[in-house]
Amino acid sequence: MPPALIAVDWGTTRLRAWLIAADGAVLDRTASDDGILAVPAEGLPSTLLGRVGPWLERNGCLPVAMAGMVGSRNGWVEVPYVECPAGIPRLAAALTRMPLGDGIDALIVPGLITRDADGTPDVMRGEETKIAGAGLDDGVVVMPGTHGKWARLAGGIVEGFATFMTGELYAALTGHTILGRLAEDPDDSAGFSRGLAASRRPGGLTHQLFAARTLVLAGDMPGTQVRPYLSGLLIGTELDHGRALAAGSDLVLVADGAFAESYGAAFAALGVPVRCCDPEAVFLRGLARIVAAA
Amino acid sequence: MPPALIAVDWGTTRLRAWLIAADGAVLDRTASDDGILAVPAEGLPSTLLGRVGPWLERNGCLPVAMAGMVGSRNGWVEVPYVECPAGIPRLAAALTRMPLGDGIDALIVPGLITRDADGTPDVMRGEETKIAGAGLDDGVVVMPGTHGKWARLAGGIVEGFATFMTGELYAALTGHTILGRLAEDPDDSAGFSRGLAASRRPGGLTHQLFAARTLVLAGDMPGTQVRPYLSGLLIGTELDHGRALAAGSDLVLVADGAFAESYGAAFAALGVPVRCCDPEAVFLRGLARIVAAA
Repeated sequence: MPPALIAVDWGTTRLRAWLIAADGAVLDRTASDDGILAVPAEGLPSTLLGRVGPWLERNGCLPVAMAGMVGSRNGWVEVPYVECPAGIPRLAAALTRMPLGDGIDALIVPGLITRDADGTPDVMRGEETKIAGAGLDDGVVVMPGTHGKWARLAGGIVEGFATFMTGELYAALTGHTILGRLAEDPDDSAGFSRGLAASRRPGGLTHQLFAARTLVLAGDMPGTQVRPYLSGLLIGTELDHGRALAAGSDLVLVADGAFAESYGAAFAALGVPVRCCDPEAVFLRGLARIVAAA
Repeated sequence: MPPALIAVDWGTTRLRAWLIAADGAVLDRTASDDGILAVPAEGLPSTLLGRVGPWLERNGCLPVAMAGMVGSRNGWVEVPYVECPAGIPRLAAALTRMPLGDGIDALIVPGLITRDADGTPDVMRGEETKIAGAGLDDGVVVMPGTHGKWARLAGGIVEGFATFMTGELYAALTGHTILGRLAEDPDDSAGFSRGLAASRRPGGLTHQLFAARTLVLAGDMPGTQVRPYLSGLLIGTELDHGRALAAGSDLVLVADGAFAESYGAAFAALGVPVRCCDPEAVFLRGLARIVAAA
């Protein structure tokens, strides 16, 4: 099957691109560390052409569609957020066209913005594309990460979402606090379920975090369980609040690798059924759907 | 009035010492950056003599009493924690005597350990001495800090306590996350009450933290309010959980400077009356009481 689309996931630290057939099959792929923070704004078009130019030369004029932080203030061009509620048709209508040279344009998918009952905004860029590919009409899509997202859908429309700083907090705690200095290699996963259990005990996160230290000091937990304990405590805290938002809906977890394992284990421990989807597969499917709707 | 006691607060980063009269008056004081982490263990006695030696030479044999991390595993000698419930008599009975040279001994106040309903331990070193000086028989003593403590007393006995990592989390968030990079000088205290209000909204701490970023991105909050917002959110979260522990008891806040201001404002916003005590004054009074009870 001939190529039909060039898909690009361009974030702060990575540029990934795929050559996609009309049936969604991946025909070729490329990736580099040319994230938007690594390249000056005026160098972004040539950086992209350097990666996908050979595909364009070989296959003629193909649509090039991008999502992620490339559409942010620090990216190629700031594409305004689309306000929730919003589904694929509104994302498609707001695709932003940028000239890539040689008469070829690149389309940038807008991010989403939502506001809670008090008017506090929350935003996403890139995850809206994964949601579009997750194939969920009614329920909640959970996308773990540095700034993990929980998005609520009804009739295929994203009604709202919430970000949890779980990944970045884990990095800050293990890298820059007394807790991280107690951690020993290799990680002992038994700490994960202890942290998960701690997330349901009184005192809240800022109290239970300190228990990682006192458990080690008192000889009740080895240093090898500190990082898994922190991971379990943070993920358990996220699930506790995220589930209030989800309120019994169908759940789709978009994750692979360590995230799929840890979030999968956390949902299983709570007895909450969840369907797991591969992030790359849903991103590519979502991007194709948004472009097709344009 | 002649000198009656040399009081020493020896923590990880600071050594502070006072020459105290029998009526509690401070006759002289000294302080340095010779925290226990800055001095090798075998150098601790001579470091202390370097600070308080002149007082001993001038006044003859005075009791020298110390509290803080000097009694920890990384300090001069590891003084075992005393288990809660415990009051001044049990702290006095467990004072540990260490030779300081020239026939003079130094007394080290033990820390306290408590366990919650699940057996998870929590510990303090130094705060037990402030509690002893706070003059509260029944109620809760709140001691903000890097690892803030809430201690519950009944009949002058510490029944239990909980640590909140508020101070260290604030440092990690402002110093090592995307939120800190959004913060601008000078701090605008209007952000504090916004963070305090956010601590009572759905989603929990890890969600409301991210709002510091989205509020700035959406133009709803200036960068000068980011650090005060984080402070208000973290303190509000601590108060929310701490008050569950306090359950309507009398509250004493042991704090000065920025801590007294921010925690005082947070309690006032909740309509919770609190008596504020100076940390140095309660430390010195508590140390004198423990030594007198020995």
